[in-house]
Amino acid sequence: MALNTTVKADHDAPPITAMLANFVVNHPSRGWSDQVEEQAQRTFANWLGCAIGPATHETIEAALAAVQELAPSAQASLLGRKEKVDMASAALLNGISSHTFDFDDTHLKTIIHPAGPVASAALALGEHIGASGREIIDALVIGVEVFCRIGNAVYPDHYDRGWHITGSTGMLGSAAACARLLKLSAAQTQMALAIAASQPTGLREQFGTMTKPFHPGAAARAGLMAALMARHGFTASHRALEAPRGLLQVFSDKTDWSEVTERLGQSWEIALNTYKPFACGIVIHPSIDGCVQLREQHALQAGEIDKVVIKVHSLVLELTGKKTPRTGLESKFSVFHSCAVGLLFGKAGEHEYTDHTVNLPEVLALRARVEAIVDDAIDEASADVTVHTTDGRSVHVFVEHAIGSLERPMSEAQLKAKFVDQSAPIIGAAQAEQAWLLSRALAAQKDLKALLEAATRN
Amino acid sequence: MALNTTVKADHDAPPITAMLANFVVNHPSRGWSDQVEEQAQRTFANWLGCAIGPATHETIEAALAAVQELAPSAQASLLGRKEKVDMASAALLNGISSHTFDFDDTHLKTIIHPAGPVASAALALGEHIGASGREIIDALVIGVEVFCRIGNAVYPDHYDRGWHITGSTGMLGSAAACARLLKLSAAQTQMALAIAASQPTGLREQFGTMTKPFHPGAAARAGLMAALMARHGFTASHRALEAPRGLLQVFSDKTDWSEVTERLGQSWEIALNTYKPFACGIVIHPSIDGCVQLREQHALQAGEIDKVVIKVHSLVLELTGKKTPRTGLESKFSVFHSCAVGLLFGKAGEHEYTDHTVNLPEVLALRARVEAIVDDAIDEASADVTVHTTDGRSVHVFVEHAIGSLERPMSEAQLKAKFVDQSAPIIGAAQAEQAWLLSRALAAQKDLKALLEAATRN
Repeated sequence: MALNTTVKADHDAPPITAMLANFVVNHPSRGWSDQVEEQAQRTFANWLGCAIGPATHETIEAALAAVQELAPSAQASLLGRKEKVDMASAALLNGISSHTFDFDDTHLKTIIHPAGPVASAALALGEHIGASGREIIDALVIGVEVFCRIGNAVYPDHYDRGWHITGSTGMLGSAAACARLLKLSAAQTQMALAIAASQPTGLREQFGTMTKPFHPGAAARAGLMAALMARHGFTASHRALEAPRGLLQVFSDKTDWSEVTERLGQSWEIALNTYKPFACGIVIHPSIDGCVQLREQHALQAGEIDKVVIKVHSLVLELTGKKTPRTGLESKFSVFHSCAVGLLFGKAGEHEYTDHTVNLPEVLALRARVEAIVDDAIDEASADVTVHTTDGRSVHVFVEHAIGSLERPMSEAQLKAKFVDQSAPIIGAAQAEQAWLLSRALAAQKDLKALLEAATRN
Repeated sequence: MALNTTVKADHDAPPITAMLANFVVNHPSRGWSDQVEEQAQRTFANWLGCAIGPATHETIEAALAAVQELAPSAQASLLGRKEKVDMASAALLNGISSHTFDFDDTHLKTIIHPAGPVASAALALGEHIGASGREIIDALVIGVEVFCRIGNAVYPDHYDRGWHITGSTGMLGSAAACARLLKLSAAQTQMALAIAASQPTGLREQFGTMTKPFHPGAAARAGLMAALMARHGFTASHRALEAPRGLLQVFSDKTDWSEVTERLGQSWEIALNTYKPFACGIVIHPSIDGCVQLREQHALQAGEIDKVVIKVHSLVLELTGKKTPRTGLESKFSVFHSCAVGLLFGKAGEHEYTDHTVNLPEVLALRARVEAIVDDAIDEASADVTVHTTDGRSVHVFVEHAIGSLERPMSEAQLKAKFVDQSAPIIGAAQAEQAWLLSRALAAQKDLKALLEAATRN
């Protein structure tokens, strides 16, 4: 046996596992402002559309085929599909689906995608136990709060190490949401969070593969099961999050406990949630926005573009620097491809990230003319875009905040259009309209039946 | 958004994900020495007894109750019980059971418990697909090889950080075993390992709670599902283990690739496996052995013991330094309790780690007289034990290697006695005898039916 080495340890961390459990159990229903409530409804509706859209994608077909080898019971719905599976597998599969197009919501402070783990678990469990819409929204707000506060405490160190933070902290959000739905005691909820703490899922190395969207699905599943285990008396460390050998100190050098403890129950992270207008990683959005703006303002044609020069923060290239993506999935991690489609088509929805589009000759030609310059003086949320034309002109735009950001949110009409664009091809226009209306008013639904009927195939 | 920081990265790692996949797929059946084969059989039989013993423990009752909320199909057996559940849940529950008494096997170089994740997944899958005993042993040897080589590559840094290495690397062993059983291609097996790589489970902070044995169960489940997903075309990074953002570099500063690549397919980690004579953490065994030896050699009575002084490596107290354990489970992490029962009863089986025993007045009285001195000149595998008597004598023993170690292995009779002691109370003496015989000769069984009939309740 080898000798062990000394590892730094903070023995004076506040009891955040217990504090969060008390918050989850005791915070009153709808105990927040109208603005927070509105963002929760938008978060749910945006997530639902994002989960319906990829329902027939090969990622879901492959994951569902594996789950079906277990001959699961028919407890909970798969969004956009006919099949039902057990509630834990439904949480997994809807969680995978909601992140498959990389089109879901983003908590910009941490690059967490909050709804995937939390809403997927809450909806699957809620369907099985007959929860009301109000209870789902409560569970969503509270689960996202736990999730994003943990994220705030460890970001950026945890993320920089290579963890996909949505999956590696998301199981705490889903455990919180499910504990709330199951009306667990504070002691049981503390155990649910603690059991979940042993199960971080997700490496950034998986970006560009099906395992990226697997991460929020696995987090949804793990949190739901942790809550069920806690309900039946399964035990874990009372300090699983904050102890010197607890999750946060194990997987991050940064552990800012105040991000968890300060104004807990008074400020709300879901109010900071944003929704993507483009079907790719958020760090590319300012660059695409710039390309779309230049295309519209100057009526640019592909043939007259000599060179595109973008200046961006180094993180943009670290995350999305694929020069020559070969598949639709890979192209979501290519700022070069994204700028090309923004200039060519004026948009970057799911259709612009297909295997077909990524290999179109005009896309390949323009992609090769996109040049990226790293400039860390430019914020990650911004981009500087210049297009040089073949006749020697150059046009320029600096995008401080992209469309879809907190500062420039999508309008209600834009959010609905995004929902319908994704879901109508799967469930039909009439059901898509109905699913939008019911999900935007979820808190008023006495149960989830009408919503799930609209959001699945019959 | 915050700025990212620079993280060290090794860009020149050998392609171990692909290398291990090729090994898993292409190494011939029974392609190892008789001695390796013998250890594989002993590993399986020891694991089986350890999984049957706790079948009715509250840990299993709680986990099974949670699984039953999913209304699982009846695909695979739960050892020592009547119920069947889906194969993934069977892998989970048998994996939990096999580690519940902390009585399972140990790969001393890494403190990994190899069989829990690997055998639990292989047996559950093997039962469902009708595998032969030969195929199970092949899958076990190959799965343990992948698991322990990864462990060797990252131990001790990974463990020192606070990860429970059995759960945090075990999903690679179970994925390998299941890929082998499913006869996946090398490309599919590479994906199975890569999907599993996103799912490390387990914090050392959970030691002393039910979540510790949850870790190998979760690893078994994750590897089995990863193999099923890969079979159906789910994708992940081709370099999920070795890339700069891959699992090993993310969760360990030490990444010794040669531990994976050198003599792969020629040397066998399962040959280094050991079996516990005492139902607690391996680092306490030398101390218990010393106490038992002194008791027997000097006919020590509790009443004449004034003080017990043990000198041990610091890791012993770090892992098992609980001074005042309150429950049977906690007492497994107390070298003080363990020495007391060794001196009082001459053994430290599961009965010596119950809630009842931990609160016996004579145990409490003697436990308070055990004093531990840290001496890092003493190896982790050794202990120096001195008992001072009330009449002023002192007796002393230095245990270089405890019984059950590689240097002093348990005899066949001892291993069988351990199996029967655990399993007879659960399945009856006749079935225990039968289960022992069939598991010790597993490779000769054409299928698993007779074994599973013996190893479950009817």
